[in-house]
Amino acid sequence: MNSTDVHVLSVGTALPGPAVDNATLTRRLGTPAVWADWIDSFIGTRTRHFSIDLETGEARSSLTDLCETAGGKALASAGLSAADVDLVILGTSSPDMLMPATVNMVADRLGIDDVPTYQMQSGCCGAVQALDVARKLLSAGNGRTALVLGGDNSVKHFDLTADFSALDPAEQVNVVIFGDGAGAAVLSTEPLPGAAVLRHVVLRLVGLNRPPGQIVEWFGRGDRNSDRTPIVEDYKAIEESVPRLAADVLDQVLDDLDWSEADIDYLLPPQLSGRMTETIVEALGVPGAQEVSCVAEIGNTGNALPFFQLERALPRMVAGDRAVGLAVESSKWIKAGYALEKV
Amino acid sequence: MNSTDVHVLSVGTALPGPAVDNATLTRRLGTPAVWADWIDSFIGTRTRHFSIDLETGEARSSLTDLCETAGGKALASAGLSAADVDLVILGTSSPDMLMPATVNMVADRLGIDDVPTYQMQSGCCGAVQALDVARKLLSAGNGRTALVLGGDNSVKHFDLTADFSALDPAEQVNVVIFGDGAGAAVLSTEPLPGAAVLRHVVLRLVGLNRPPGQIVEWFGRGDRNSDRTPIVEDYKAIEESVPRLAADVLDQVLDDLDWSEADIDYLLPPQLSGRMTETIVEALGVPGAQEVSCVAEIGNTGNALPFFQLERALPRMVAGDRAVGLAVESSKWIKAGYALEKV
Repeated sequence: MNSTDVHVLSVGTALPGPAVDNATLTRRLGTPAVWADWIDSFIGTRTRHFSIDLETGEARSSLTDLCETAGGKALASAGLSAADVDLVILGTSSPDMLMPATVNMVADRLGIDDVPTYQMQSGCCGAVQALDVARKLLSAGNGRTALVLGGDNSVKHFDLTADFSALDPAEQVNVVIFGDGAGAAVLSTEPLPGAAVLRHVVLRLVGLNRPPGQIVEWFGRGDRNSDRTPIVEDYKAIEESVPRLAADVLDQVLDDLDWSEADIDYLLPPQLSGRMTETIVEALGVPGAQEVSCVAEIGNTGNALPFFQLERALPRMVAGDRAVGLAVESSKWIKAGYALEKV
Repeated sequence: MNSTDVHVLSVGTALPGPAVDNATLTRRLGTPAVWADWIDSFIGTRTRHFSIDLETGEARSSLTDLCETAGGKALASAGLSAADVDLVILGTSSPDMLMPATVNMVADRLGIDDVPTYQMQSGCCGAVQALDVARKLLSAGNGRTALVLGGDNSVKHFDLTADFSALDPAEQVNVVIFGDGAGAAVLSTEPLPGAAVLRHVVLRLVGLNRPPGQIVEWFGRGDRNSDRTPIVEDYKAIEESVPRLAADVLDQVLDDLDWSEADIDYLLPPQLSGRMTETIVEALGVPGAQEVSCVAEIGNTGNALPFFQLERALPRMVAGDRAVGLAVESSKWIKAGYALEKV
């Protein structure tokens, strides 16, 4: 049924401040200059953007700021205004505040009102959750146009006063692999010329009886001084599991759509780090597809990533082209995939 | 169409520890005994439950613990098992951690796997958002059965070491009006005898150009020592706006369904505090409906509240009975309403 197809009309993105390269980062962290080469080689992330000024520690932009910019660009690019938006959904693991939800602050900035809004609390799969819910709601007739947002702002987890060399290796890796940013897409049941159809979204929690691969804590007034470790990662588990989960969900997306690997023109793989993405793409083995990655330039921007990939892929797609995007969340192990087709 | 009706099969709830009355609370806070009478009279909340031990400050239960209990009860009461659940949605303003999302930890505890999960970051309207999305997804054929959860745990905002009498009045009020708890409902397109149909949900952000009525901050590693005020409330704006927004959304629910006020058998009003709920109910003026409230006994448990109200209302409803529930979120001003009918 054409009437229930949901189209991606446009994409917008936002990055804070200038690109920070590995030499600048290691200089700021006070580590030996050789670390910059080590990050280039073994992490594969060359630059990223931070929403704090690395020198002064001052906040440069909130998640609301970044989402406002990305959302505004996406709306403008679709030729739509705030009044055209029937619902707003944001996926993030790092909202500016617990309340109000960031999605509502963004809606206010963009002049959007009197609509349902939802904010998904999630790690790397939150943007796919937002795309999933927006697609299902629009497809079932709950409004015509959705503004879908995703973004993450690591500012609150970045302690520039800490002794970097005293951190354990997993925490050191966090500082170099993550970056800040936001993205947005306008989805609609009314197509624009050149829009791609969001054909399918697969989203599965697969964490039964498995310890989390990533834990990120928050602190309130009452437990600010607790000695809980704020961020814990099991990079060994992540390296073992993510390529397999990405392959699993790719198979499921293809099976559900009755597509074959040869049908994929563009592959948007998980973007953990430049190096991990290379490993995943090799493991996926879809040689006929063009890879669309951005992690080496912008770092792991969490829930913003799919929008940066879509922003690169969509203009390259011609009628009949198919794209599959994949994301894996290691927190409690979620696999996610989505499929687009230019019609 | 009968096939797309979504039924509320069962409800389950959970409260931590014993009920704490105003005398016990004021004794613990070191305030004059007369305050207990003052809270009784002017706040109207008599007891609440806390997920910390007031004497020792020790955590008694996490939000995951409370949701596991509530969700397990709801599933058992519906005669369903983990394998019957096609999706899980949780609404909360106070997740245990940022990652993994609490919904995924709860799913794991209940043995639910290989399904989509979503967690709505929201204040008092998060449970309605969860009901809304679950209803729309199920109604459109995205699965048959959903476990919908809502809960809040104030433990992280409760600083028992602070000098209560030095807090500003708005912050003192927070300590006495909020309580901890969780609730759950099983929604399904397959009815059980006696289940009510969730006929409609209205959810509208109406915060354009209005300052937030409530701000709740979280702190990460990098900003734990910042001097931002963790919680800010504008109780004057809340008292002015909430009754009006509740009346607005009641009108909208009735208009959308072509119901009249006389059709409402049970009214589940917003549960800010015992006193505020009285004021709202008076303003709503639906004398023919039986009010279903619980805030005086359990306090404002945020996203858990609608489930406690449903738990009381559903067993009293007979075939043909209609119920309308209302919630207002003052953070960035959201009005929400839902309607049930026993068939």
